[in-house]
Amino acid sequence: MSRGTELARIALLAKRFGGAHGLKGDARIDVGIGDDAAVLEPAAAPLVWTIDAQVEGTHFRLDWLGWEDVGWRSFMAAASDLAAMGAVPLAALSALALADEVDDAALDALARGQADAASTVSAPIVGGNLARGKETSVTTTLLGYADRPILRSSARVGDGLYLAGAVGMAAAGLLALERGVASAADPSIAACIQAWRRPRALIDRGLAMRGIASAALDISDGLSRDASHIAEASGVTLVVEEALLRARAAGTLTSAASLLGLDVLDLVLRGSGEDYALLVTSPSPIEGFDRIGVVESAASGSGSDTASGGLTLVRVDGTRAPVDPKGFDHFG
Amino acid sequence: MSRGTELARIALLAKRFGGAHGLKGDARIDVGIGDDAAVLEPAAAPLVWTIDAQVEGTHFRLDWLGWEDVGWRSFMAAASDLAAMGAVPLAALSALALADEVDDAALDALARGQADAASTVSAPIVGGNLARGKETSVTTTLLGYADRPILRSSARVGDGLYLAGAVGMAAAGLLALERGVASAADPSIAACIQAWRRPRALIDRGLAMRGIASAALDISDGLSRDASHIAEASGVTLVVEEALLRARAAGTLTSAASLLGLDVLDLVLRGSGEDYALLVTSPSPIEGFDRIGVVESAASGSGSDTASGGLTLVRVDGTRAPVDPKGFDHFG
Repeated sequence: MSRGTELARIALLAKRFGGAHGLKGDARIDVGIGDDAAVLEPAAAPLVWTIDAQVEGTHFRLDWLGWEDVGWRSFMAAASDLAAMGAVPLAALSALALADEVDDAALDALARGQADAASTVSAPIVGGNLARGKETSVTTTLLGYADRPILRSSARVGDGLYLAGAVGMAAAGLLALERGVASAADPSIAACIQAWRRPRALIDRGLAMRGIASAALDISDGLSRDASHIAEASGVTLVVEEALLRARAAGTLTSAASLLGLDVLDLVLRGSGEDYALLVTSPSPIEGFDRIGVVESAASGSGSDTASGGLTLVRVDGTRAPVDPKGFDHFG
Repeated sequence: MSRGTELARIALLAKRFGGAHGLKGDARIDVGIGDDAAVLEPAAAPLVWTIDAQVEGTHFRLDWLGWEDVGWRSFMAAASDLAAMGAVPLAALSALALADEVDDAALDALARGQADAASTVSAPIVGGNLARGKETSVTTTLLGYADRPILRSSARVGDGLYLAGAVGMAAAGLLALERGVASAADPSIAACIQAWRRPRALIDRGLAMRGIASAALDISDGLSRDASHIAEASGVTLVVEEALLRARAAGTLTSAASLLGLDVLDLVLRGSGEDYALLVTSPSPIEGFDRIGVVESAASGSGSDTASGGLTLVRVDGTRAPVDPKGFDHFG
């Protein structure tokens, strides 16, 4: 197991982050890796800024993911926050805490995954921090900009409720791994495992909703839990239609749910696998988003047994029921 | 041991970070804690951006530091990078990975230390991330701005070499703790331990050097190791005078070194205790900085036994010798 000195490892990272996916010719970046801090050209629009940490054992397990997957996923987790604000990604910093198990080959694979994700969302990694730790973690901070960032708190009664991206796929993939169901079992299982391993921040969809959507967030802990955040922040009730959710999940996810012995609706509402889909409220339809419901007043609740605000499900038979905002926990 | 839910803990942090030291009335901050990302007003100058992680066991030990100290130190470690660029701090994000030992009282103390440091450098904490981990770590990213950030790579032959802040104090404090020498042993030991526990990023000194200094960095791993970074990046040799270093360390540090049985010069050159002093090259003197030497061409080296570039020491007797760019390791 080969482990370079700290300086050699920083050089390895600088090569991966500044190389093929690089900084050269990027007019937005004045100073990249190698000084006390990175320097970016001033943006004309408000800055949108987020940080996300993925910790071994809590967010990833190496028997289920390669190091390149870990790098990719951790970057996309942070990038998804920018998508949810309707922001254009600008650049990223990466702070790595590395356990002894991470040799140079593993570090290089991790960095490749990060660099690929950075390239995919056009946010080069311009600096970072390297530390030793007993457990490995990858912390990513991303900066972007948006003329009018789309918040959670501005949903309006009467808006439609829209969804972009797969919801429940990653949770199904994670459950399959937990139960030892292999990708080879079925193409739908393979697709779900891949969705969990290689989520993709929906930056383009985030940009498509600019000027249209009233509120937005990214779904990482299940539709019901995350929807409750918009409902609370905006003081409204989000009403989703079971029929629309089921129609949307027809095909791969429904097959996978069936193979796993689950109701697909449970996966969509409560599956917590970090899909990084976008949940949006909007007065009009948005390219690439599916309508799944409507925004009602908080007082409307769910009829008689109302919890004010939150998420209400309209069942296929027309009855309404509040949805408990709980996701499955990580690793069951 | 009381541990709130994740939402309760985020509320606790939002209160600490947005409260007394707060965001309200800060025109630079559009959106703080509670949405997918923070939103800042665009800065007219280039952005200076850094991230630093402090990991339990590697960077701090709880038998030597309280949680409030951990919060303070981790914030100042990141802020010091902005000082070294001559940047004005703008805001910060904090990513916490918390082991089970961190109950709500500990978390509150940690957050108080962070908030105090944030207030001290006028960079409110506007968001972050909360995760579980087997070991606790505090990762801080800071944004600032500077019309002309001061890099490591622009030292010029003939410039003077200047230093601001205590160098070697924190290392002496750390060594005292490692050897079980208590604060009560001597006021100089107490001062050194306090310097290690509560370092202060020299933001004001960083601002004072704007428009004057040619190159700068912050000293966290000992003068010799960090000086070699400027020397390499700028392609020069930094020449320091032993007499000036000794004169500068007279008093507290010299007393502490004597009590610890160390040569004060070793502490100054090789003590790695994260002092967060600023090492600067400049064609003219700077308010609050002491001259300690001069910038020479890389070829000048140290005479016959030259290592090109790096740091050269002019001894009190006038002889010259290269200084090995090695610091003491953390925890000896």
